[in-house]
Amino acid sequence: MTAPAQALQDRACLVLHGPDQPGIVAAVAALITRNNGNIVSLDQCSDDANGGAFFQRVVFHRPELSAVLPQIEDDLQATLTPFGMHWRLTDQSIPKRMAILASTADHCVLELLWRHRRGELPVTVPMVISNHTKIAADVRSFGVPFFHVPSRPEDKSASETRILELVKGNVDFLVLARYMQIISDTFLDEADVPIINIHHSFLPAFVGAAPYRRAKDRGVKLIGATSHYVTAELDEGPIIEQDVARVTHAMSANDLQARGAYVERAVLSRAVGWHAEDRVIRHGNHTIVFA
Amino acid sequence: MTAPAQALQDRACLVLHGPDQPGIVAAVAALITRNNGNIVSLDQCSDDANGGAFFQRVVFHRPELSAVLPQIEDDLQATLTPFGMHWRLTDQSIPKRMAILASTADHCVLELLWRHRRGELPVTVPMVISNHTKIAADVRSFGVPFFHVPSRPEDKSASETRILELVKGNVDFLVLARYMQIISDTFLDEADVPIINIHHSFLPAFVGAAPYRRAKDRGVKLIGATSHYVTAELDEGPIIEQDVARVTHAMSANDLQARGAYVERAVLSRAVGWHAEDRVIRHGNHTIVFA
Amino acid sequence: MTAPAQALQDRACLVLHGPDQPGIVAAVAALITRNNGNIVSLDQCSDDANGGAFFQRVVFHRPELSAVLPQIEDDLQATLTPFGMHWRLTDQSIPKRMAILASTADHCVLELLWRHRRGELPVTVPMVISNHTKIAADVRSFGVPFFHVPSRPEDKSASETRILELVKGNVDFLVLARYMQIISDTFLDEADVPIINIHHSFLPAFVGAAPYRRAKDRGVKLIGATSHYVTAELDEGPIIEQDVARVTHAMSANDLQARGAYVERAVLSRAVGWHAEDRVIRHGNHTIVFA
Amino acid sequence: MTAPAQALQDRACLVLHGPDQPGIVAAVAALITRNNGNIVSLDQCSDDANGGAFFQRVVFHRPELSAVLPQIEDDLQATLTPFGMHWRLTDQSIPKRMAILASTADHCVLELLWRHRRGELPVTVPMVISNHTKIAADVRSFGVPFFHVPSRPEDKSASETRILELVKGNVDFLVLARYMQIISDTFLDEADVPIINIHHSFLPAFVGAAPYRRAKDRGVKLIGATSHYVTAELDEGPIIEQDVARVTHAMSANDLQARGAYVERAVLSRAVGWHAEDRVIRHGNHTIVFA
Repeated sequence: MTAPAQALQDRACLVLHGPDQPGIVAAVAALITRNNGNIVSLDQCSDDANGGAFFQRVVFHRPELSAVLPQIEDDLQATLTPFGMHWRLTDQSIPKRMAILASTADHCVLELLWRHRRGELPVTVPMVISNHTKIAADVRSFGVPFFHVPSRPEDKSASETRILELVKGNVDFLVLARYMQIISDTFLDEADVPIINIHHSFLPAFVGAAPYRRAKDRGVKLIGATSHYVTAELDEGPIIEQDVARVTHAMSANDLQARGAYVERAVLSRAVGWHAEDRVIRHGNHTIVFA
Repeated sequence: MTAPAQALQDRACLVLHGPDQPGIVAAVAALITRNNGNIVSLDQCSDDANGGAFFQRVVFHRPELSAVLPQIEDDLQATLTPFGMHWRLTDQSIPKRMAILASTADHCVLELLWRHRRGELPVTVPMVISNHTKIAADVRSFGVPFFHVPSRPEDKSASETRILELVKGNVDFLVLARYMQIISDTFLDEADVPIINIHHSFLPAFVGAAPYRRAKDRGVKLIGATSHYVTAELDEGPIIEQDVARVTHAMSANDLQARGAYVERAVLSRAVGWHAEDRVIRHGNHTIVFA
Repeated sequence: MTAPAQALQDRACLVLHGPDQPGIVAAVAALITRNNGNIVSLDQCSDDANGGAFFQRVVFHRPELSAVLPQIEDDLQATLTPFGMHWRLTDQSIPKRMAILASTADHCVLELLWRHRRGELPVTVPMVISNHTKIAADVRSFGVPFFHVPSRPEDKSASETRILELVKGNVDFLVLARYMQIISDTFLDEADVPIINIHHSFLPAFVGAAPYRRAKDRGVKLIGATSHYVTAELDEGPIIEQDVARVTHAMSANDLQARGAYVERAVLSRAVGWHAEDRVIRHGNHTIVFA
Repeated sequence: MTAPAQALQDRACLVLHGPDQPGIVAAVAALITRNNGNIVSLDQCSDDANGGAFFQRVVFHRPELSAVLPQIEDDLQATLTPFGMHWRLTDQSIPKRMAILASTADHCVLELLWRHRRGELPVTVPMVISNHTKIAADVRSFGVPFFHVPSRPEDKSASETRILELVKGNVDFLVLARYMQIISDTFLDEADVPIINIHHSFLPAFVGAAPYRRAKDRGVKLIGATSHYVTAELDEGPIIEQDVARVTHAMSANDLQARGAYVERAVLSRAVGWHAEDRVIRHGNHTIVFA
């Protein structure tokens, strides 16, 4: 339920997590009230009734928000420090900047651009980067800049350096929309923004290459796709969203791949949308998703 | 996610609704804090950002809850009256009392009894009432009393009177588990407890009798089931839950009915569970479900 | 499981239906064998074991098919006439010609064009016709001709006449991809090709206008979409495919519409694909779908 | 779509597989015709258009079937041997005999017994065997014999020997309904009937013990269940059916297990039903399922 752009004016999103303890909800609610905010939505959970971790997302409306954001942040600092809470406050009228990395397959990248054009993804898209040129015209037809950065297996760091030059300071998160290149730890460190990947299997089944071929070999009756944050370990990052589709014995590995493309684009789009709206909290190798 | 019985000790559930306005969440949270409660979960929504209705469900833990319930209620009265809020506070360690009305079909009633035995429905089941005797032995094998109240088309009020004698004062809500008798307005008034029905179609399609036959005649590709609160208008009450199953041209109306039974028992069980846990708020002809 | 284009070379698809009786399958199989064909796939069903209707779809491979098609048709005529069967033989290497009628909403028409470009819809698309110009550039970016035929409420027949001039003789079927205009009986007669519509509800619920608004008003928990052949009665034609998506109390009618768009484009695409591959047999107001 | 018992009278089911080649379908159809049978349903597929394996299932009606079964078998032998086909002909009026092995969990075994009582599983159930006594009364309430064969970790072969004494000659297949004991290769060999297992994960994810705990640890967003034929390698046998259910961050491992029970019983029931109706063909480590 993406709110239309005008509805996001003067809306703040507060996300917090830390050790569960009595009084947090009251403290946060009182803070919002004394700062003249009105709570629009509130989600919370705790991972264990007895002393686990606490997670909360609150959206509140505050007229003239941009003027008072710093003083609300000061209040949060003073209020939440005693609770040992991590928190992040964002102005929902300022969309996150998203770069998409893709390869030759167009289904994920076009779905993201199309949803964005429909106003369903609250982001800006300053660039699409691909190691091939096949999707260039389609990307540019959406009014989005396209950059070609070829992959060179013999010198991977050169292309990563070029990508970093493009994205550093210009984007808030990266999406690997079937980019099909393994990201180096160096790139992860240097990029220093969340990176969302779509893996074409129901993780943890079929980690790594050629999952549809291996799914066919194993004779599964459902195929899947998984969107997760990228970490140093391949296909092991925190899962944001997954889904599946039914397949039959009559389908070849290529048929699985064709069917799976529809699952991939849907799963990735949902994950990106939730990330863009600050609905996802990372906690260890898990995610809390307030969808 | 039904909490095991011991986990419900000293847990209160507060449900409130009324006109949306700033400060409600803070007021409720402060009230819970000053009554030494700790919020376990909190859901809320409002049906319109500009002056709509506000709905909230809060579960909080308070040691020695039963001793202080009256004074919390006094505090709620004083605190929420200025906001014009309707509210209901329940002690979650006290299960609701549920009577089931059934006929000859056993799939819904046995599913409810079985889920109850597994500890997945936080209710007690003081009785099952049927207008036939077919399911008597199965019901009693769960340790649940069975009463036979034959339907007499020529004098419907006699059976309704007999049922009212059984349930009045003894139950908190009624479930029509494929009872197949139309409930009179008089019964509705006299029973004066919520009544949950399962209708064997995807409402509002196929209101009334023989929905599977009519679904076959229309050539639909999915069949469904709908659980709703019973109101004076047949199959028009607030919907709690719905689901569907895929069917094909090769299936007869009887096949649809057999397939549909699995949808019916799942949909009814979910609706009953949510009602039992105070997760459903009726609002006009709608429900808010904090599932 | 769409076969790639080269795999369709020398493949014939035979669809037949008529009164069920012993020996039909054997007669058809023998006919294919004596015409040097090899059966690739075969589906059949009968709607009643005792004297109902029989439906069959057989795909067979026959080298040099185009040269011998007429003599196979003669053989079919001679063989199936005694059985009282209706039949249709098509050369699968010749794609059907599909015209799309759309309005301002792009989700259905772009999905069809995109699936076509991926090689997943075995059709040609000689034209897209719209009563608005909004989607013109997007359509032409797929290399597909776009024609603008404004709707004139005061003289509906003028636009229908213009559309008929465009499509007559040039297309094998029409797709109404959220065209939002009611088709006259005259148009239906004159067009004389199958017309596939997508209705934005789970028929027979919410026949007619504004189904999402009415779904919100009724408080349903699932929304749906239905693709069907157009007949003289609005939204009453034979259903080809349906699907649903879960919604919540927190969603507005606009949210339902946005969510529903994804169901609509998926349902319409599946229906069109099955029609294009001769997998759908109309029988009265029903369809048999060999998917 | 299980046919009612009387509908199975005089119905034969022929299942065949072998190298794909022209003329098989015609040969089988002609054989059925010359033996005065009428084809009720027919499914077939081939795993590769160019010289792969061919699979077919045909159900046909033949008055006085039991009298002529041997001569039809002779005809099949003579007709199919030149094609190198494996085949199996069964009289559908003779249900397969199914033994169920269970432990303390009742959800799978009760679902099977209940579906059987409803006439939805065309089998007889000569016995349920458990290594505990917890489910004895429930099983016997269905009129099914219950045998207690305790597991003795120190002498596993003793319990397996006892089970073999019970089932040898008395059953056509075994179902492990959450039996939770690893079957020895010796048992597999000696039992010499198909054994169907339900594994409580979406295989190949979470092979082995404690899949729900491991699913929670990995942070998956869907859990699953898999029914497969048991082979010498744990959880590696041919998959018959799989399904999934959505879970959230708020659910504990115990919640996943409770939710998963509903997936398990549905998946196992479907797999057992298809096996009972000869709809499953094993081919290497795959299954062809004509559902």
